[in-house]
Amino acid sequence: MSAFTVKHSDDNARVGVLSTAHGDVATPAFMPVATQGSVKSLDPADLRAINARIVLGNTYHLYLRPGIDIVELHGGLHRFMAWDGPILTDSGGFQGFSLEHLRKIDEDGILFKSHVDGSMHKLTPESAIEYQERLGADVIMPLDVCVAADSDKAAVAAAVEQTNRWAERCKETHTRTDQLLFGIVQGGLFPDLRQRSAEHLISLGFPGYSLGGLSVGESKEDMYEGVAAAAELLPSDTPRYLMGVGSPEDLVECVARGIDMFDCVLPTRIARNGALFSRDGRINIVSAPHRRRDEPLEEGCDCYTCQTFSAAYVHHMFKAGELLAYRLATIHNLRFVLRLMEEMREAVANAEFDDYRTAFHARFVPPDQRARHEQKTKWLQSQGRPGA
Amino acid sequence: MSAFTVKHSDDNARVGVLSTAHGDVATPAFMPVATQGSVKSLDPADLRAINARIVLGNTYHLYLRPGIDIVELHGGLHRFMAWDGPILTDSGGFQGFSLEHLRKIDEDGILFKSHVDGSMHKLTPESAIEYQERLGADVIMPLDVCVAADSDKAAVAAAVEQTNRWAERCKETHTRTDQLLFGIVQGGLFPDLRQRSAEHLISLGFPGYSLGGLSVGESKEDMYEGVAAAAELLPSDTPRYLMGVGSPEDLVECVARGIDMFDCVLPTRIARNGALFSRDGRINIVSAPHRRRDEPLEEGCDCYTCQTFSAAYVHHMFKAGELLAYRLATIHNLRFVLRLMEEMREAVANAEFDDYRTAFHARFVPPDQRARHEQKTKWLQSQGRPGA
Repeated sequence: MSAFTVKHSDDNARVGVLSTAHGDVATPAFMPVATQGSVKSLDPADLRAINARIVLGNTYHLYLRPGIDIVELHGGLHRFMAWDGPILTDSGGFQGFSLEHLRKIDEDGILFKSHVDGSMHKLTPESAIEYQERLGADVIMPLDVCVAADSDKAAVAAAVEQTNRWAERCKETHTRTDQLLFGIVQGGLFPDLRQRSAEHLISLGFPGYSLGGLSVGESKEDMYEGVAAAAELLPSDTPRYLMGVGSPEDLVECVARGIDMFDCVLPTRIARNGALFSRDGRINIVSAPHRRRDEPLEEGCDCYTCQTFSAAYVHHMFKAGELLAYRLATIHNLRFVLRLMEEMREAVANAEFDDYRTAFHARFVPPDQRARHEQKTKWLQSQGRPGA
Repeated sequence: MSAFTVKHSDDNARVGVLSTAHGDVATPAFMPVATQGSVKSLDPADLRAINARIVLGNTYHLYLRPGIDIVELHGGLHRFMAWDGPILTDSGGFQGFSLEHLRKIDEDGILFKSHVDGSMHKLTPESAIEYQERLGADVIMPLDVCVAADSDKAAVAAAVEQTNRWAERCKETHTRTDQLLFGIVQGGLFPDLRQRSAEHLISLGFPGYSLGGLSVGESKEDMYEGVAAAAELLPSDTPRYLMGVGSPEDLVECVARGIDMFDCVLPTRIARNGALFSRDGRINIVSAPHRRRDEPLEEGCDCYTCQTFSAAYVHHMFKAGELLAYRLATIHNLRFVLRLMEEMREAVANAEFDDYRTAFHARFVPPDQRARHEQKTKWLQSQGRPGA
């Protein structure tokens, strides 16, 4: 029986259900990131309250600290972090990219210098799978080689070949039948390399496919194009997981291109800096206009923060350096993103996704368009017309 | 009608009820400290879950940030911090002591240099009351002069006289009938000065009395003696609030001496450093023995942390620098202290307080006795006898 069922399609966007050993996940799904076994500043009850269905942990980090043995002692990551819903673990391949100065890659695997204590550790396709079997996540990733967006074609080709060979070794090693091992498509922005990667993985046969090496420095347009092309290469009856993407505008655009699963630290990371999502874009809660705002951060938001506190209180928590600030902001941003996913699922089910997407972009101004948008609004106002 | 009723007495220890505009508080009560409008790392739901009944805010801090006007805009501190239970505010007098390098005291009041931005601010008995009326706490404090434990008698006498004169001005200024304005007894460790302070305040007549200027550097024995003597000077039908005291051993000893209310940052502050309460004393959760402890921090503890996570997980949160560590630790320590208060109330009601106190001390080893205790235990073991 397949672990994934598509329930509705609307052009390339689709709604489905991913079945895991710890429950079903409605897709498109956003996965909050619990790198070290905790979604930063939140507890499991918070995650349930915002309707998170699946969270992501990281093998590399958990291997170094607390150590696989400690998690195993607890019967796995679910009990260790007191989260009985689905978990996906990344393999550590991405850390071979993001911690570039700390690693060396060869045929055998990735040699890391620990960011915790400087000790040396090798992650191989086999050990990455062994560790993930012991962590016990519901969806696991093979070890892959990820390269920067501006890498030359030879480097990307080498990464694809290495990832393909490692995918075979991972598949051979993997034994737990209650875990879904995905394949990771690499190839950056080179269509032929991406095709080669996808075709090889499909020939091996995986219950789902991840898109790696996107959102690693390329422009948004290039990323969207790469996502669309990659999605087309993949079977329509398996889930497509776009790794590391999660700004609201990217979520909408990539759902439009057929992506089913996402993870990203952006909503939680910027929350801790006071950048909070609203339907009109990001607001900086620490800025002066929020000092006297005796109203929720965002009208109509159903999160605990907005239902309980004023924007002025959240502003005060940040200004006063209170720890509660981080949790309140994180709850709001994650709930914003998860509500976006809920709305997109509904729009797709009702075959109204295109309208939803248009309405979203009519209001939501991403940070990189903020200056242009404000200029345009001012110009329209100077012409006696309402803002764009 | 009196705001305070003694329900049971057991020697000097007593159980009572303090009635406030936002509900009743069973005494002896411990008040978690929300200096800036937040009990550090917790939200109001957390406070309810640990059975906190009353919390403390600070006029000096809230006046500087966010400003009384912002809190007033929300209709007061209760709605601002989303806490509908009783609140007590301190006047700022203690900050005239603790921020010594930042203030100048004269007959009129205390001139502060803001710790936030260096600006100058004057707190007078009148403005301290005005601000507290606008903050809207249920129990408020007069402006007082607090001096260090090692001050000479002339300095303590001057502080008593100043506090007495300010108490009169505060009482005259205070108009809100839904707030209880306490008097603050000063006098340090000088019995005659303490008596002078108490007698003057009693002649003015307050619905409750605070003991200030204790736990400011003196020995525990001196503090206990001072508390016992001061409690004897005060009417038996009004609550006695010992300001700034809150280690478990001090709570037990001061309840034994007739104290009804306490506040202290110690349980929350040490929690954030990984020092967690157990029946046997403090444990350092960051230390190695907890790395593999797949069991609650403390067996039998009913707090969310102990009911949900292992000691190993809390250890990991601290080691990994996860924000969740602070909240989990704070919940545990506050619940420990609040449970202690619940148990003491029950023991007093059952006229078994002395047994409770003895049993508590037989297990709980305070940090300053740890070395001596370990030496004694080792010696007993070397003699073939079980540990003390």
